[in-house]
Amino acid sequence: MPINRRIVIANLPQGGEISSSTFRMEDGEVPQPEPGTVLCRTTAIFVGSALRRVMGSYLQPGMLVMATGVARVVASRDASFSEGDTVLAPTGWQEYALLKPSQISAKLPSADNALDYLGPLGGSGLAAYHGLVTVGRVQASEVVVVSAAAGSVGQLAGQFARIKGARVIGVCGGADKVDVLTAKLGFHHGINYKEGNIQEELKAGCPEGIDLYFDNTSGPILEAALLQMKRGGRIVCCGRLSEPHDYDSEHVPAGPRGVPGLLIQRRISMLGLWAPDLAAEDEKARNEIRAWLESGELTRLVDITHGLENAPASLIGNLAGGNVGTRIVMLE
Amino acid sequence: MPINRRIVIANLPQGGEISSSTFRMEDGEVPQPEPGTVLCRTTAIFVGSALRRVMGSYLQPGMLVMATGVARVVASRDASFSEGDTVLAPTGWQEYALLKPSQISAKLPSADNALDYLGPLGGSGLAAYHGLVTVGRVQASEVVVVSAAAGSVGQLAGQFARIKGARVIGVCGGADKVDVLTAKLGFHHGINYKEGNIQEELKAGCPEGIDLYFDNTSGPILEAALLQMKRGGRIVCCGRLSEPHDYDSEHVPAGPRGVPGLLIQRRISMLGLWAPDLAAEDEKARNEIRAWLESGELTRLVDITHGLENAPASLIGNLAGGNVGTRIVMLE
Repeated sequence: MPINRRIVIANLPQGGEISSSTFRMEDGEVPQPEPGTVLCRTTAIFVGSALRRVMGSYLQPGMLVMATGVARVVASRDASFSEGDTVLAPTGWQEYALLKPSQISAKLPSADNALDYLGPLGGSGLAAYHGLVTVGRVQASEVVVVSAAAGSVGQLAGQFARIKGARVIGVCGGADKVDVLTAKLGFHHGINYKEGNIQEELKAGCPEGIDLYFDNTSGPILEAALLQMKRGGRIVCCGRLSEPHDYDSEHVPAGPRGVPGLLIQRRISMLGLWAPDLAAEDEKARNEIRAWLESGELTRLVDITHGLENAPASLIGNLAGGNVGTRIVMLE
Repeated sequence: MPINRRIVIANLPQGGEISSSTFRMEDGEVPQPEPGTVLCRTTAIFVGSALRRVMGSYLQPGMLVMATGVARVVASRDASFSEGDTVLAPTGWQEYALLKPSQISAKLPSADNALDYLGPLGGSGLAAYHGLVTVGRVQASEVVVVSAAAGSVGQLAGQFARIKGARVIGVCGGADKVDVLTAKLGFHHGINYKEGNIQEELKAGCPEGIDLYFDNTSGPILEAALLQMKRGGRIVCCGRLSEPHDYDSEHVPAGPRGVPGLLIQRRISMLGLWAPDLAAEDEKARNEIRAWLESGELTRLVDITHGLENAPASLIGNLAGGNVGTRIVMLE
C-alpha cells in the first residue's frame, strides 16, 4: 500500500524561532479519490517566509504545513481534470494531496516550466508586479530601490523594474548576493547591508535620490530609504522580514523614524500592498511576465532543494536569509 | 512722519519654546514707493503654527516675522494696482509693506469678506481641500476622522467632509472645542483627546472603522487612528503639531507603531501632503469653497485678536492649542 509522507507541526516555535523541532514527518495513507475529487502527486513546493507569520494562528500543532505546490494528477473523479494533468494547488508539505476542483488554483498548460508558477508567474511574481507596476507605477528612468533584493519577490521586482527602464539598486545580505544581482539579474547596483552604513551606501548608490522604494524588510533599511527619497517618491510596503512576529495588542514595534514628517516635507506616499486584492489585474500581469520569460529579458533564479524531508531545513535557511531567488523543494 | 510699526525676531527660542521674548517691536519708517512698487497698509494677518518650524532656519534674529496678510493699497507706482485695492500678500508682521507686484498673491474683488482669503480661500482652505478631496478623494458615506479638528485647517477639512456627505469625527483638545465642532460646524461626533483613552474613544466613535484620516498632529492620535483604519483606508499626512521641531540628523522621532505592518495587513495608504504642489488645482478648489460659503453650507469660524502688539501672544496661544478656527490679528 502506498504511503503519503507528510510534514506536520510538532511544536509551535518557542520564542518565535522556527527550528527542526517545529516539524514532524508522518506516514499517512494515500487517500482514495471520492467522486468530485482529484488525487495529486506533489512534484514541487514553494518555500516562503510567510509561513512564519501563521505559526500559532492558522497553523497549530498536528496540522499539515501549508504550501503552494505543483502537482501531477494521478487519479481524477472530476470531469475537469485528467490523469497526467499538471496543476498548481495548495498541496501542503506532503506527497499526495486529495483536492476538490475548487481548491485547485490552475491547470497548467504542461509540465514544462511548471516551476515558473511557483515564482515569476506565481504569488511572488504577482506581488512583485503589482507592487512595482499596478500600485508603484514605475516609470522608465526612475531610480528604484528594492530590499531583500535576492529574495523570491525582491529579485523579480528588481528585474521587472530593470525591464521597465528604471535604474535598479538592490539591497541584500551578502556580497555573494550582490554579485548575483549585478552579474546575473541586471541590477545596476547592489548593496550588502551587513557591511558599511546602509544610509551612506544608499546615498552613494543613488545620490540623486529614490523615486520608488519596494520595501520587503521594514526596519533600518526602510528608515534609511525614507531619508533618501526624492520629493514625490513612493514607498510600496510589501513585506517586513525584519519584524518576525505578527502584531498583537501588546507588541507593536515603533515605526520608522521620519514618518510622517518626511512624508509631508517630501510629499512621499507609503502604499500598503496586499497583492491578492489586485487579482483582477493578475491576468494582465501574468501575460506581461510570461512575455518577459519568453523573450529572455527575465532571468529565472531558483534555489532548489531535493526531498520533502529537507523542507524544514530549506525554510529555516530561507528565514535566516540564506536563499537566492525562488526557493523550491522538489519532491520527485 | 508716519511710522511703520513692525515686529522682528529678537532672540531665537531657547529649547524650542517660543515666548514673548522671542519678539521685539520696532518703529521703522514708512517706505516711499519707487517706480514698479506698491505700498500697502496691512489690515489683517494670519497667525499659523508653521512659524514655529522656520525659527532658526528662514527666520533669524533681526528679521521681520513672516505672515500672509490682507492689505489695502495706499500708494501704487505700478499700473496693475490702484490706491484702495485690497490685496492678499506676504505682508509680515508690520503695518506697511512695500511690495513688487510679483510678490502680491492676489488682488481681491473687494474688501468684503477679505478675511476669507486668510482662511477658507487661503492656505488653510487649500490644504484642507487638497488633503481631503484632491489627494484623499473623500467619498459620500465614508467615515472621516480629522485631528486638530478645531484648528485652522482641521475645522475646514471636517466641514468639507461633512458637505461631501461623509460622517465626520473631530479630535481636538478640549470639551469646549468639541461643542463648537458638533454644535456649530456640523461634525457628527467630537473627541477630546485630553480626556479618556484616545484608542477607546476612536473605537466608540467609529466602530465600523475609518476610511480617511486627515492627520494634523502625528503622535499618539495618528497611532490610535492607524489601529482603527478600515481595509483600504487612506491617511493624509498634512501636519504634525505634536512634533514641534523640524527633523535634523540628530533628532528624528520614532514613527507611529504599526507602520508598515498595518499598512500591509490593511492595504492602507499614507499620503504626504504639501498643498502648494497642487497649485494647478487651486482655482477649482477655490470655486467650490466659494460656492459653499455663498450657500451657507460652510460656516466661517474665526478667532480674532486686535492690535499688532498682540500678535506674539496670539501665536503663543495658537501653539498652545488655544485657537478655535482661523486665527487672525486685525491691525485696524
